[in-house]
Amino acid sequence: MKAIFTLALFSIYLAATSQSFTVVPLGVKGGLDESDLSAYMVAPQGSNDFICLDAGTLNSGIQKAIATGAFSPPASNILRNDIKGYLISHPHLDHVAGLIINSPDDSAKPIYGLQSCLGVIRDKYFSWQSWANFGDEGEKPQLNKYHYAPLVPGRETAIPGTTLSVQAWPLSHGAPYESTAFMVRSGDSYLLYLGDTGADSLEHSDRLHTLWLVAGPLLRAGKLKGIFIETSFPNEQPDRLLFGHLTPRLLMQEMRALANIAETPSLDRLNLVITHRKPSGDNEATIRRQLETDNPLRARLIFPEQGKRLDL
Amino acid sequence: MKAIFTLALFSIYLAATSQSFTVVPLGVKGGLDESDLSAYMVAPQGSNDFICLDAGTLNSGIQKAIATGAFSPPASNILRNDIKGYLISHPHLDHVAGLIINSPDDSAKPIYGLQSCLGVIRDKYFSWQSWANFGDEGEKPQLNKYHYAPLVPGRETAIPGTTLSVQAWPLSHGAPYESTAFMVRSGDSYLLYLGDTGADSLEHSDRLHTLWLVAGPLLRAGKLKGIFIETSFPNEQPDRLLFGHLTPRLLMQEMRALANIAETPSLDRLNLVITHRKPSGDNEATIRRQLETDNPLRARLIFPEQGKRLDL
Repeated sequence: MKAIFTLALFSIYLAATSQSFTVVPLGVKGGLDESDLSAYMVAPQGSNDFICLDAGTLNSGIQKAIATGAFSPPASNILRNDIKGYLISHPHLDHVAGLIINSPDDSAKPIYGLQSCLGVIRDKYFSWQSWANFGDEGEKPQLNKYHYAPLVPGRETAIPGTTLSVQAWPLSHGAPYESTAFMVRSGDSYLLYLGDTGADSLEHSDRLHTLWLVAGPLLRAGKLKGIFIETSFPNEQPDRLLFGHLTPRLLMQEMRALANIAETPSLDRLNLVITHRKPSGDNEATIRRQLETDNPLRARLIFPEQGKRLDL
Repeated sequence: MKAIFTLALFSIYLAATSQSFTVVPLGVKGGLDESDLSAYMVAPQGSNDFICLDAGTLNSGIQKAIATGAFSPPASNILRNDIKGYLISHPHLDHVAGLIINSPDDSAKPIYGLQSCLGVIRDKYFSWQSWANFGDEGEKPQLNKYHYAPLVPGRETAIPGTTLSVQAWPLSHGAPYESTAFMVRSGDSYLLYLGDTGADSLEHSDRLHTLWLVAGPLLRAGKLKGIFIETSFPNEQPDRLLFGHLTPRLLMQEMRALANIAETPSLDRLNLVITHRKPSGDNEATIRRQLETDNPLRARLIFPEQGKRLDL
């Protein structure tokens, strides 16, 4: 009886502490620096079958990851063989430039996203005017390297070539512009990645609230291994100049909403990965300091670095 | 009499050897590496009033140029104050990504180009779907940071904020796609920059021939300080897979056409700056070797490096 009890405790411990995902950030900044824009490769622990969440920078990030030892050369192998598909949160250039620029050397694979996002990639980038049409829709001739795979909000979709599944949820990124959160599942573990987003209070939206209703129970059950969420501007940025982005104060406001739904007094088991800090002036350091000094729920703040592997 | 003769000789010598332009390459590669895509800042010698020829990478290149000592920090000052305008050869993303990505932190200035190129920038990038509209045309609201300044082929246009003037000439970049050559003038000196281009023979075009008719007399008179021209692929690339680009063999074929028009048996006074080598595999080294081993007109081959100042 005691043995069974110990085993049960150990299982709970394992579920709460074992690492389920490998993440290699290929780019982490919220603009300006073309060599380091939002892109996060994610695979189940122990697997080389990755998805790439956003694709602002690919080649520079893969080269950095090879330099840190997170990946083995050649870079072309990572691009062509290890990335099984792209999940694009929204079509602003700092989230897709790497995908477009690297397309001539890429292998055939799907691009996942909400229909509205895929439509912009098809019509604005792979249009034969701004770039050759490597897609399987839009202006002819279609080179058919990339298959547009629309995601239906809230419906889980398996990602072929991996053991991962994903659910997409729309976000508000400066109304009327839409962005996307991806809830990635590996077995019984989850990773939540949010594209650019404003706070519900300022966006006059309930999209983050809706997302927390999904994420809260997973957090409470110890199944949510991390949340990747943006903090583009420091607290000093006026509300009217946020353009659908978060500040440290607004992020913590949303984390309080999540904690309430999860019915937890603390987020000290939550890996909160801060993305998309805009690198103008001292903003990156300021945002970090503001988050670290006002983190009442004690979330485990992680500031990802380009090419440095994270195990979550 | 002898003194006057000596003085005249000395003047000719000065005209042929003095340096007229400062060039700081912000990016030199022909694709893939988002941190190092085509962009060349050009100013009259001794001036900080630059134009930027293409804008594939800005921020990463400015940071590199600060690291080499070509520029003084902060990077934001170079972007905002020293670049007086962009001249875009064609709207493929590897020639404009830096401009789009850096636009939120840039100052107001013109974007020069052929009307067809400016129309794509307006409709595909600064469209509110792929990026906020920082232009003064297209989707409303127009943020009016960039003024679209169309160039008329062959008509010289002064660039306000600099002492430079420019003439644009259309190029064929895989018919029906158009690219542009810019003939930049500072006083009595010229610098010729070509965007991506195929060879007349394969493009069934006379656009390079037309350009050599303009450049030939300037070369002969010792006024042409340099030609920036692409060599995207090595000689092994099949003609049908050139997509409107040059190889070492095709470049030298075009240089022979130029030398014929300039009525010179040798190009040993011509600075021939090789741009846009595509960095797949060993291509960059192969292209360089092929150019260096088969350079019958003995052009002064220059392989520009990101952030390293050139004086021409």
